[in-house]
Amino acid sequence: MIQEGSRVLLLTERKKRYLVKVKPGVKFHTSEGYVDLSELIGKRYGTRLTSNTGSVWFALKPTIVDIVMKMPRPTQIVYPKDLGTIIILGNIKPGSRVLEAGTGSGVLTAVIASYVMPNGIVYSYDISEEYLENARKQLEELGLLPYVKLKRGDVIATIEERDLDTVVLDIPTPWLAVPNAYKALSDGGVFVSLSPTIEQVVETVDALNSNGFVDITTIELLMRTLRVKKGMTRPDHIMRAHTAYITIAKKVCRDSSDY
Amino acid sequence: MIQEGSRVLLLTERKKRYLVKVKPGVKFHTSEGYVDLSELIGKRYGTRLTSNTGSVWFALKPTIVDIVMKMPRPTQIVYPKDLGTIIILGNIKPGSRVLEAGTGSGVLTAVIASYVMPNGIVYSYDISEEYLENARKQLEELGLLPYVKLKRGDVIATIEERDLDTVVLDIPTPWLAVPNAYKALSDGGVFVSLSPTIEQVVETVDALNSNGFVDITTIELLMRTLRVKKGMTRPDHIMRAHTAYITIAKKVCRDSSDY
Amino acid sequence: MIQEGSRVLLLTERKKRYLVKVKPGVKFHTSEGYVDLSELIGKRYGTRLTSNTGSVWFALKPTIVDIVMKMPRPTQIVYPKDLGTIIILGNIKPGSRVLEAGTGSGVLTAVIASYVMPNGIVYSYDISEEYLENARKQLEELGLLPYVKLKRGDVIATIEERDLDTVVLDIPTPWLAVPNAYKALSDGGVFVSLSPTIEQVVETVDALNSNGFVDITTIELLMRTLRVKKGMTRPDHIMRAHTAYITIAKKVCRDSSDY
Amino acid sequence: MIQEGSRVLLLTERKKRYLVKVKPGVKFHTSEGYVDLSELIGKRYGTRLTSNTGSVWFALKPTIVDIVMKMPRPTQIVYPKDLGTIIILGNIKPGSRVLEAGTGSGVLTAVIASYVMPNGIVYSYDISEEYLENARKQLEELGLLPYVKLKRGDVIATIEERDLDTVVLDIPTPWLAVPNAYKALSDGGVFVSLSPTIEQVVETVDALNSNGFVDITTIELLMRTLRVKKGMTRPDHIMRAHTAYITIAKKVCRDSSDY
Repeated sequence: MIQEGSRVLLLTERKKRYLVKVKPGVKFHTSEGYVDLSELIGKRYGTRLTSNTGSVWFALKPTIVDIVMKMPRPTQIVYPKDLGTIIILGNIKPGSRVLEAGTGSGVLTAVIASYVMPNGIVYSYDISEEYLENARKQLEELGLLPYVKLKRGDVIATIEERDLDTVVLDIPTPWLAVPNAYKALSDGGVFVSLSPTIEQVVETVDALNSNGFVDITTIELLMRTLRVKKGMTRPDHIMRAHTAYITIAKKVCRDSSDY
Repeated sequence: MIQEGSRVLLLTERKKRYLVKVKPGVKFHTSEGYVDLSELIGKRYGTRLTSNTGSVWFALKPTIVDIVMKMPRPTQIVYPKDLGTIIILGNIKPGSRVLEAGTGSGVLTAVIASYVMPNGIVYSYDISEEYLENARKQLEELGLLPYVKLKRGDVIATIEERDLDTVVLDIPTPWLAVPNAYKALSDGGVFVSLSPTIEQVVETVDALNSNGFVDITTIELLMRTLRVKKGMTRPDHIMRAHTAYITIAKKVCRDSSDY
Repeated sequence: MIQEGSRVLLLTERKKRYLVKVKPGVKFHTSEGYVDLSELIGKRYGTRLTSNTGSVWFALKPTIVDIVMKMPRPTQIVYPKDLGTIIILGNIKPGSRVLEAGTGSGVLTAVIASYVMPNGIVYSYDISEEYLENARKQLEELGLLPYVKLKRGDVIATIEERDLDTVVLDIPTPWLAVPNAYKALSDGGVFVSLSPTIEQVVETVDALNSNGFVDITTIELLMRTLRVKKGMTRPDHIMRAHTAYITIAKKVCRDSSDY
Repeated sequence: MIQEGSRVLLLTERKKRYLVKVKPGVKFHTSEGYVDLSELIGKRYGTRLTSNTGSVWFALKPTIVDIVMKMPRPTQIVYPKDLGTIIILGNIKPGSRVLEAGTGSGVLTAVIASYVMPNGIVYSYDISEEYLENARKQLEELGLLPYVKLKRGDVIATIEERDLDTVVLDIPTPWLAVPNAYKALSDGGVFVSLSPTIEQVVETVDALNSNGFVDITTIELLMRTLRVKKGMTRPDHIMRAHTAYITIAKKVCRDSSDY
C-alpha cells in the first residue's frame, strides 16, 4: 500500500519515469500534466492514474535499479548491466563483508548494501567528504545506512579492514590499490575493479599478476534492448556501447615472507 | 581453512578448472597429473600445490558462479552474464519471495536461493520429478535447500503462491503462464522470463501487454572476455553470442472485475 | 588539385564534416566561422585552412562513403557498416549487372554503381517518381549516372531484366519479390535483402527456402568505434546498435516445370 | 555453364562447403559420400546432385568470398566482415591504385584486386618469398594476377610507389610504416591498417597523428549470424568476437619542408 513518505515510480503515457516521494498537498508537474500526490495515499502499487491533461500514468513500486538510476550523480555511475555482474561475479551475497572505493554517487554502494544485508556490511571509502555526505543522505533515505560504513580515506594509502570477502574498486588507478586489496581480502576473497579505459585494465591486470592474484578475468558487457511488437520486432537503434571493463581476480596464498 | 568435505576449485597451470570435494585418501587425476586431496586438509584457500608431474595448481575457494557452472546439466543452463541481470533487474534481494519455473538443472534456483537468504524463499516448480530430484541433491549439497521449496507442478496450470515479489520463468511457453504469474505476484511484483528465440519473446510481450503488465523491457546481454597482457591486449576471438533474451515487466492493478 | 566545381570535405577543428562544392565568391559559414571557398581553387587536397575566427580546418578529398553519407535522405539510408558487406557478400564486382529496389535516397545505388563500373550496370527500381528524380540528380552530380538505369516500377509486380548477377532488395516486403528475383537472376546469382525487423527476415527466408534458393544466411553487423589516445583508450560510449539484418542466398536450378 | 576447369562450390546436405575444380574422371569424396565431378560438365550452376550415398548437394557458383575463404592460409586471414569494410572505407574502387602489405595468404590481395580491376592495380609487398609464391599461384588460378604486382620487400624500409589512392597495412608494426605510407599516398589518399591488439592500434594512431594524417577512425566490426526459422529464430550461439581493429585515416598536406 502506498503511504505518506513512500517512494513511487511514476511511469507516464510517453514512458517517462519519475521517482517521487509521496507527500500530501504536493502536485507533481511534468510535460504531460500533473498529478496530486495526495491521491496516491492508500492506493495499491500499480495503480493507474490520470494527469490533469488526461495522460494515463502508473504509480509503480520502484525496484532497486529504478531507485539507484534516479540518484543524484556527482560522479559517473555504474550501469544496471554492470551492477548485476559485479554482484554475482564478485561473489557478493547476503552476509558478505565488502570493501568498496570510491563511494562516488553511492549507486554501487546502495546496490551492494542491498545484497549483503541483513548480516553483511559494506565499507565504502572515498577521499571526498562531499561525495560521502551525499551518499550518506541517499543511503539513509533508502534505509540502507545500517549496512554501510562510509569512510573518508584513500585505499591506495591504507585499507584498515581485514578478512574481507570482496573488494570492489571503481577508482582511476586501481592498480595502485592492489597490494592493499590483497592484504584486506580473506583467503578465498575476490577482487573486482571497474575501469573505462583499456590502459587502466592492462595496468591493473599486471599488478594483480604480480601481487598474489590468479584466475584473473576481464570482461565487458553489452546490453541490447529490443523493441518487441508483433510484426515490427527489432533491436533498438542506439545502445550504450561502453561503460567500463570489469576485472575479477582471486587471492592466493603467498610465502610468509611476502607479508 | 580447507577441511574434509570442503569444496575446492582446482585451477591448473593450463587454466583448467575442477570443482572437487576434499576427501582423505583420494587422488584427483587430470591430464596435468594428479594431486592427493588429503594434502589440502588444514591448508588455506588459495594454497599453491604441485601435481605429481610438476604442474602448478591453486586450490581456490569457489564462488557461487564457480559452483553453479559445475553443476550437472540435465537441461540448458542460465549463464553468468544473465544470472546477475536476472537478480538485479528482477529486484531479487535478501528476503524476497520468488517463484521460479522450471527448476531444470537447478543453476538458477541455486543462485536465486543464494540471494534471497536468509529470510526469503524460492518456490521452484518443475514438471519433471527427475529434475527436481537432481536439484534437491545439488541444493542440499550447497546448503541452500532451506531457502527453496521444490514443487512438482506446471505453472501454466496453477501457481499456488500469492504475494510474490518476483516470478522468473524459464519455460518453453512463458506466455501461457502470464495470467497465473499476474495472480501470484504482489502489487509491485516483477515478472522475468528467459527465452532463447525471438518468437517466444514476441508472444510473451504480447501476453504481458494484455494481462496487466507495464514497463516491459526485453534485453539481450553480450559478454566479451578480453585477453589482457601488456602489448598484446585484445578481445578473445570467440564468444558466446547468444543464450537467451530476458524480458522484465511490472504488474499493475486492474479493475476488480478482472480478478 | 582542387578546382572550381570540385567537391571537398571540410573537416573542422571540432571534427564537424561538411561536404561542399567549390564555387568562386562563396563563403561557407559554420558555427566555427567561415572560409572563402575561392581560396581552395588551385590548392591540393589535404590543404589546411583557417576560418575567419581562427579555427583550423582541412579540405579533404571526400571518399565514396563521405559523399553518400551527405546525400539528402528522403528515406532511411543504408549505413557504411552494411554497405561494404552488401558489396562483398553480394558478390558485386566491376562488371556486375545488379538490380536494386527501392532506389530510395540513392545511397546504395551510388555505392553499387561505384563498384560495378566501368562495365557493369545497376538497374534501380522505385515506385516513387520523386525518389527517382532526386536519385537521378545525385547520381549525375557524382558522375555515376552512366552506370545506373533508374526505373519506375514495383519489383513485386515485375522485374524485366534477366541473367542478373545480384538482386539487392531494400523494400518493406522483400518476400513478395522473391519469385521475381529468382527469374531475374542468372544461374549462380546472389540474392541480398535488407530488413530492419526480424519478422521481415523470417518471411523472406521462408520465401527463399520455397522458391529455389539455398546457402541462405542472415547476418547483422555491429560497428564499434574506439576513442584511441595513449592512456585513455576505450570504445565510444554510444553506438548505432541496429540498422538492418542482411539476408544473402544463392539461386539453384529447379525442374523445368517450375518456370 | 559449368565446364572443365570451372570452380564449383559444393554445398552438401549437412551444409558443408567444398570448393572444387571440375576435372573429368575425378571423384570427390566426403563424409557424405562422393560425386563424380565429370557429371558436372555442361550442367548449369545451381544444379542439384546426389552423392552415391543419397545425400543431396548443390553445385554453386562460388562468390569472391567463397573463394578466398577456401584459400590456403599460411598466415592469419582477413575475415568477410572486415573485407567489405576495408574496401568501402578504404575508398578502394575500380581503377584504384592500392598498396597492400603484407601479402600473407593473399586473401586480402585477391579481394582488393577484384575491386580495382579492370584498370586499377594492387602493389602487394611481403618479406617472405614463400608467401609471395603461394599468393602468385592463387591469384593466377583466380585470373587476378594481371591486377597485382607482387613485390618482395619491407614497407617499413621503403615503399617505391607514389600517388597511391590507398595503402592497406596488415603487418605487426604498422606504425613504423606510417611515414612511408604518407609519402606513397596521393593527396586525398586513404590509409588503412588492421591490427589484432589494442596496443598496436594506439601506436598506429599516435604515428598517424604525428605524421600528417587526420580524420583518423578506429573501428571494430562484430558480425552476428542468425538461425532463421519460423517459430525458432535466434542469433547463433557462438560468434567470432574479434579479428582485428581497423584504423582509417586521410593524408593532409604538410609544409614543403616535410618532403
